[in-house]
Amino acid sequence: MAVVGASNSPTKFGYMLTRSQLAMGFEGPLYLVNANEDEIMGRPAYPDLHSLPEPPDLVYLTIPAHRSMEVLKDCAAVGVKAVVIVASGFREIGPEGKHLEEEALRIAREGGFRMIGPNCFGIYNPRNRLTLLPGHDFSTSLGDVAFISQSGGFSAHVARQGKSLGIDFSAVVSYGNAADLDETDFLKYFTEDPATGIISAYLEGARGGEEFAHVLRRAAEAKPVIIWKVGRAESSRRAVISHTGSLAGSPALWDALIKQSGAIEAAGVDELLDIVLAIKMLGRRPGRRLLICGGGGGLGTYGADMAEHQGLSVPPLDEGTLERMQEALDRAGAVAANPMDFGAPLIPVPFLEAAIREAAGNPTTDVLVFDLAVNFGYDIAGDFGIERAVEILCDVRRDVGKPMAAVLYSRSCDPDDMRFETMFRRMRKRLHRGGVPVFPSMERAVRAIARVN
Amino acid sequence: MAVVGASNSPTKFGYMLTRSQLAMGFEGPLYLVNANEDEIMGRPAYPDLHSLPEPPDLVYLTIPAHRSMEVLKDCAAVGVKAVVIVASGFREIGPEGKHLEEEALRIAREGGFRMIGPNCFGIYNPRNRLTLLPGHDFSTSLGDVAFISQSGGFSAHVARQGKSLGIDFSAVVSYGNAADLDETDFLKYFTEDPATGIISAYLEGARGGEEFAHVLRRAAEAKPVIIWKVGRAESSRRAVISHTGSLAGSPALWDALIKQSGAIEAAGVDELLDIVLAIKMLGRRPGRRLLICGGGGGLGTYGADMAEHQGLSVPPLDEGTLERMQEALDRAGAVAANPMDFGAPLIPVPFLEAAIREAAGNPTTDVLVFDLAVNFGYDIAGDFGIERAVEILCDVRRDVGKPMAAVLYSRSCDPDDMRFETMFRRMRKRLHRGGVPVFPSMERAVRAIARVN
Repeated sequence: MAVVGASNSPTKFGYMLTRSQLAMGFEGPLYLVNANEDEIMGRPAYPDLHSLPEPPDLVYLTIPAHRSMEVLKDCAAVGVKAVVIVASGFREIGPEGKHLEEEALRIAREGGFRMIGPNCFGIYNPRNRLTLLPGHDFSTSLGDVAFISQSGGFSAHVARQGKSLGIDFSAVVSYGNAADLDETDFLKYFTEDPATGIISAYLEGARGGEEFAHVLRRAAEAKPVIIWKVGRAESSRRAVISHTGSLAGSPALWDALIKQSGAIEAAGVDELLDIVLAIKMLGRRPGRRLLICGGGGGLGTYGADMAEHQGLSVPPLDEGTLERMQEALDRAGAVAANPMDFGAPLIPVPFLEAAIREAAGNPTTDVLVFDLAVNFGYDIAGDFGIERAVEILCDVRRDVGKPMAAVLYSRSCDPDDMRFETMFRRMRKRLHRGGVPVFPSMERAVRAIARVN
Repeated sequence: MAVVGASNSPTKFGYMLTRSQLAMGFEGPLYLVNANEDEIMGRPAYPDLHSLPEPPDLVYLTIPAHRSMEVLKDCAAVGVKAVVIVASGFREIGPEGKHLEEEALRIAREGGFRMIGPNCFGIYNPRNRLTLLPGHDFSTSLGDVAFISQSGGFSAHVARQGKSLGIDFSAVVSYGNAADLDETDFLKYFTEDPATGIISAYLEGARGGEEFAHVLRRAAEAKPVIIWKVGRAESSRRAVISHTGSLAGSPALWDALIKQSGAIEAAGVDELLDIVLAIKMLGRRPGRRLLICGGGGGLGTYGADMAEHQGLSVPPLDEGTLERMQEALDRAGAVAANPMDFGAPLIPVPFLEAAIREAAGNPTTDVLVFDLAVNFGYDIAGDFGIERAVEILCDVRRDVGKPMAAVLYSRSCDPDDMRFETMFRRMRKRLHRGGVPVFPSMERAVRAIARVN
C-alpha cells in the first residue's frame, strides 16, 4: 500500500495515518509518498506513485481535495486496485465539492479501481493490520464483528471501545460520502464474509432505495444486523447533509425498513456495543423473562421497573425453585422472589453459590441478571467477597448454561482513587471471559436484552 | 451517640457501622454497647445503655429485630431522643414483623423519642460527621443537596458517587420502612432547612396521601425537588412490599402528582445525579435551545437526534454569529452551523477559542453542549490539546456567563491502561470547578438538560 501525503508534521492527517499504519504493523510493503520530503519517520519518501518500486494495490490519499484529481489519474496509470480518499471538501460542502467528487468517480471508473470515501478514515482490518487514520493501537486479533460507518470519529470510537470490552472485529470501514462503494456494497460483502458473524452500522443515509432494502433483509436473515441510523430530527438532517452530503430520509420509513428487515436498532456507540455483547454472550433472542437479583431490595425494585418499561417481564419464580430458594435464603433481609434480594451486598459465599444455582435453574425465566452492587458492597467486603462472587457467576454460567448478565456500576470518579476502577475492570474482563456480559447500569442491561429479543 | 450491637466481627452490621462512624470521626462522644465484649476497636464496650457515662441523644440499633424491643425500652428509660433501627425483619416480612414494628412505634411514642427505620442505613450528616452504615469515606464538606431514600444501598451509592463528582450534601437519610418518621417529615424538614438548596428522593411509596401531596408541592415551590419513584411495574410493586412493606401506588397517580407539584422526575442514581449537576451548574430552567458542537460531524448529528428526541431544539444560528463563525471556521471539514463541526478533534487552540466564544455568544440558543470527543481525539492530540480545550471552555464559561455543558466519554475499559481514565477524571474535576457539568454521553447530557427545563 501507499500513503500519498505522508508527512512529518504532527498536525497533518498524513502524519497520523502513517504513524497508525506503522504502529499497527501493516503486513505488506508500505510506501510513503511526499514530493517535499526525503524521509518520513525513518523511511524513504517517494515523490509520486510512478517512482515506487512496485505499483501498490491500495492507496490512502491524505492530500487536500483539489490536489487529489491528479493523484487519482496516477493511480489509474500505475494500475492501483483501490483508493481511500481521506480528505473532506467534496460533496458535503456544496456544488464545487460535488463536481470534484463526480470527477474522482469518473477517474476511478475509467481507471478500473474502486474507491472508499472521500471524507473518511479508511479501513481497519486486523487480518493484515491495515488500520484507520487514528487507529494506531487497535486490536490485532481477528474477531467476528463488522462495523461500517459514515462517521470517521465513530468508526474509531467503536473499534477502540470494542477492544477494551474484549470485542474483536472482522473489519471496521469508515466510508464517509460513499462516492463509489456504499452501505449496500459493504452489507453485501459482510453478509458473504465467513469471518463476520455480526454486522453493525452507523448510517446517515442510504442511496440504493429498493436494492438497499433487499440487501439489508438478506443480511439480517443471514446474521444479526445492528443499525444505528442518525438524522431523525430536523436539525440532524441538516447536519447529515453538511457532514457526508447524504439524504437522511424519513424516520418513519427507516423505522419500518429496519423493523421489517429483522435488523436490531441501536442509538449510540454504547448501545451498539451493549447489543453486540448481548448477542455474543446471551445469544440472539435469549427470551424476555428475566430473573433479577442482587444484594439489596432497591436494586431489584429499580431493575424490575426498568425491565418492564423495556417490554421485558419479571415473572414469579417456579414453585419448586421458590421453595428451595427460601431454604437457601433463610436470613434477615433476604427475599426469595423475583426480583430476588440477598438482603445485603456482603453475601457469604456458600450461601451465594446455592442461591445463584437455584436462580439459574429456575424454569420460568430465560435470563438471569445479577446486580453485583459493588458500588457499596466493595467498601464493606473489600476485594475478596466480590472476586469470589464473580468466580461463582462464571462457574454457574458454565455448569448450568443459562444466559446470565451482570451489572457492575463504575462507581468512583475521583482522579486520586483508581483502586476501585482497576478492580472493576479486572472483574469485567473475567466475566466477559466467562461468557457473562457486563453492563454499567441496570438500565443499559435491560435495554440491551430488550433489543436482542 | 451510642451504637447498640457494636461488634468486632467483620461480617456484622454492628462492626461496619462502628468502623464507619470512627472513620468519619463523629464529633460527639461515641459509646459502643455490647454485653459480650470488653473492648471494640480499641474502645471500651458497655453492657447496656444504663451503664453509659451519660444518656445518648441518638442510638443506632444494629441488633436483630426480635431483640430490639428490650433495648427500645431502655432507650425510653434513659431518655434517648432519637433511634435509628438498622435491622430488617419488620413490616416487610409479613404479620409477625408488622407486629414487632407496631410494638417499636408504641415504645417510641410512650418513651418520647423519634425513630428512623427500621430496615435502613441511618443518617449521613457532614455537619457533625454522623454517617451511614457503609459510609466510612464520605465527604466531610457541607453541601446543599439533601437525599432521602427508602433504600439503604442507594443512599450509600448516591452519597459516594456524589462525592466523587464533587457534589456535597446537607444530609442523606436512609429511612427504610418509615415506621415513625417518613418521607413527608423529611420533605418538610428539608424544605425549611436553610443549608439545603436541592431536595432529592428515592421513594418506594408514600403514606400521607393528601398531606404528602401538599408537602411535596410546597417543597417544590421553595427549591428544586427531584423524585425517583420506583414500583411502577407489577413485579416491582411486589418487590416494594417485600423490601420496605410500602404500597407503591398507581404509576399514573404518581406521574400526575410529581408533574403537578413541579418536581423533577428521575429514574436511577445516574440520572438523579446528572440532574443535580445540571441544576447546580446550568440553573433551574436554563432553556431548551441547544447549540451542539464538537470535532466531528457524527457527534453533532447524533447529538441533535438525541436532543430533539428529548423535546429540546437545535435551532439555526443567529445571522451575525453565523457570519463570524464561518470566518473563524474557515478550514476543510469544519461546518459553521448548529450542530457545529470543528472538522477534526485536533483543533488549533486560537481557532477553537474564537469559535467557542462565538458559540457562547449566539443569541438564538440557551445552552452550549460541547462534545470534547476525547475518545478519539486523545490519541491524535495527546494530553496537551485537550487540557487546553478544557481551560478554554472554563474561561469562556466565566467570561460569557452562558450555561455550558461538556460531554466526555469514559473510553478505555482496559484494566492495564488507566492513563486515559486518570486524565478523563482530572478534566472532569477541572470542568466541574469551572461550572461546566460533565456528562459521560450525549444521551445523558441532553436528558438531564431536558429534565431541568
